[in-house]
Amino acid sequence: MRRRNLALVLGTVAAHSPLSRADVAGRIGLTRAAVSSLADELIVRGALTEAEAVSSGGRVGRPGRVLAVSDRGPAGLGLEIGVTHLAACVADLRGEPRVWRRVERSNAGRPAGQVLAEAAALAAEAEAEAAALGLRVEGRVLAVPGVVSNERRGLVERAPNLGWHAVGLADHWPDPDTVPDPDNEANLGALAEYWHAERVMETFVHVSGAAGIGAALVIDGRLFRGARGFAGELGHIPVHPDGAPCACGSRGCLEQYAGDAAVLREAGLTRHGDPVALLAERAGAGHAPTLRALDRAGRSLGLALTAAIDLIDPDGLVIGGAYAELAEWLLPSVRAELAARVTVRPWASEAVRASALGRRGPVLGAALMTVRRLVADPTRLSSS
Amino acid sequence: MRRRNLALVLGTVAAHSPLSRADVAGRIGLTRAAVSSLADELIVRGALTEAEAVSSGGRVGRPGRVLAVSDRGPAGLGLEIGVTHLAACVADLRGEPRVWRRVERSNAGRPAGQVLAEAAALAAEAEAEAAALGLRVEGRVLAVPGVVSNERRGLVERAPNLGWHAVGLADHWPDPDTVPDPDNEANLGALAEYWHAERVMETFVHVSGAAGIGAALVIDGRLFRGARGFAGELGHIPVHPDGAPCACGSRGCLEQYAGDAAVLREAGLTRHGDPVALLAERAGAGHAPTLRALDRAGRSLGLALTAAIDLIDPDGLVIGGAYAELAEWLLPSVRAELAARVTVRPWASEAVRASALGRRGPVLGAALMTVRRLVADPTRLSSS
Repeated sequence: MRRRNLALVLGTVAAHSPLSRADVAGRIGLTRAAVSSLADELIVRGALTEAEAVSSGGRVGRPGRVLAVSDRGPAGLGLEIGVTHLAACVADLRGEPRVWRRVERSNAGRPAGQVLAEAAALAAEAEAEAAALGLRVEGRVLAVPGVVSNERRGLVERAPNLGWHAVGLADHWPDPDTVPDPDNEANLGALAEYWHAERVMETFVHVSGAAGIGAALVIDGRLFRGARGFAGELGHIPVHPDGAPCACGSRGCLEQYAGDAAVLREAGLTRHGDPVALLAERAGAGHAPTLRALDRAGRSLGLALTAAIDLIDPDGLVIGGAYAELAEWLLPSVRAELAARVTVRPWASEAVRASALGRRGPVLGAALMTVRRLVADPTRLSSS
Repeated sequence: MRRRNLALVLGTVAAHSPLSRADVAGRIGLTRAAVSSLADELIVRGALTEAEAVSSGGRVGRPGRVLAVSDRGPAGLGLEIGVTHLAACVADLRGEPRVWRRVERSNAGRPAGQVLAEAAALAAEAEAEAAALGLRVEGRVLAVPGVVSNERRGLVERAPNLGWHAVGLADHWPDPDTVPDPDNEANLGALAEYWHAERVMETFVHVSGAAGIGAALVIDGRLFRGARGFAGELGHIPVHPDGAPCACGSRGCLEQYAGDAAVLREAGLTRHGDPVALLAERAGAGHAPTLRALDRAGRSLGLALTAAIDLIDPDGLVIGGAYAELAEWLLPSVRAELAARVTVRPWASEAVRASALGRRGPVLGAALMTVRRLVADPTRLSSS
């Protein structure tokens, strides 16, 4: 009960701050005394701060003291291992990113232990920078482009574009006290989108693409992972069932038309460095084969997303991750395909949009995962 | 609180009966006195009965009295308007169907008022038969092959195979006291499957086909309707994007390969009476063009269901409604297609099965909708 009330006070301040203790009591229907005791505990735990209100001139009488979620103290660390980069982010309890790190690094096919040791080093740098800001990391989550089972915590079952199979993070992480929890990057990107979007949608599909094309489903404000954790596998939906053979053993999968390797090939480009940046650069320069390849990719994405709309009936679709940088060229053909295909229900073209977070989504979502946990259950906060 | 406790007692007896009052108290952690008061109220409302336990010889001492959910009293009426039939079903509070009615009737293109008047007459017959069994209908739900909005209760937005557009049931139903709530037949079929399946799945896709091909999603034991009530539109997923034009304006929709009209055409058969019965009869007789047409339909269904598995990661898929009668011929090609297409996650062939309820699913689900509401909130029960 106290746990629930702590969460209620913290959540109320987070959503509506600045609020006085009396304001909080009025909103949640607890007594002023009860709210004060809860607020005191949240202050001790570093979750809330209290300061003199800046007078807005609108109130009569002496200025009160108002509560706000702390921008120091408890924080979440997000990490990401991508095919061509490592990243880290620290977010404070307000959900604001305070530390960003990103290094380009070719991770495909390298030993998992080596990659994880480098990620751990980047994490240590980010935590040190956060400590200098007065932030204390209380949880660590690692975004991976792969499948993390619902059942076995700490295990990356399969990350084909890294060449990982059944990698247990604890087996490789240098410091047993800082082993992160792995999660799928598309899921974490969707979480960041849900948290930070200007126009919040309760039910949406978040597409996140590059080497593989994944999606995450947010349903009624919660990440839906499927019965076994495999939901949102957009890349192997058959868009042209008799089409190109896919590495998965099937034919005509979306990845064969909209995955970065397929788009590069269709554009006649040779991969060097970051393929999405290369495609954006060529498209921006008006390179006709690249524009045609992106149009084809967008059409195929539109076919797969037609299935997603037909099945799930979301409020909207978000193109996130690295592909957000290609939105300028992908969105017109995605929208055209949806306009032609989604005809038996209302569907507005603007319901598909690009994420403003782009590549930062997954690692920010990884940081926010801890913040969400702490806000939902402030008793997890260590007393500072 | 009393409402919740009434539901707890009723739900416990429903799941584990026969139980004595003491057994119930032990299971739910309330006092014997509290349970007795709740049980008395449920008996007065007609939801529970109490009788001498039949001695199983295993207990020492005098036989006790045990509670059971009543097979008389409160009941739900389900109705269905199909393209070629009308149906009614009354289920008692145990969820058992007690009255079944079904008449073949060509409903496509007839005035909605006429069809609804005939449905109301069938409903009155079913209620009279139920009354003779001591059952009292406390809620009415109508299954329609169409779209019922989340927002506007009582309105069938669109049922293309009936030719309905924006039909408000109250505008046509003869007796204002017995107007049913409409709901989509695929959703109700899924609900019946969830209630009556031998092997319960918490997350599954229920396909229900004939003129149109719909699906319903049960996610974590609850029907998922989508952001606006349109979830589960399987029939217009593009399975062959450059394929046959569809009435919806798109091309290559599943319905053009697996809808009953398409299968009849491909089999070289002329529609007369019930198309699914005709297909089952010809297939059973070994008619080669029919077998080929059903194989093609199964393959196309497999393509659309690949998208459903990839996106939703269900425990399994159920082929229900009229198409359950074609399962013998559809399932092998559905399973073959899924085996070839769903390769990046574990997927067992037996995870696709036919519903044992078949055509009875939707109308039974319509009756169960009321039963579920009453069991979840026994204060809705009128005191008998």
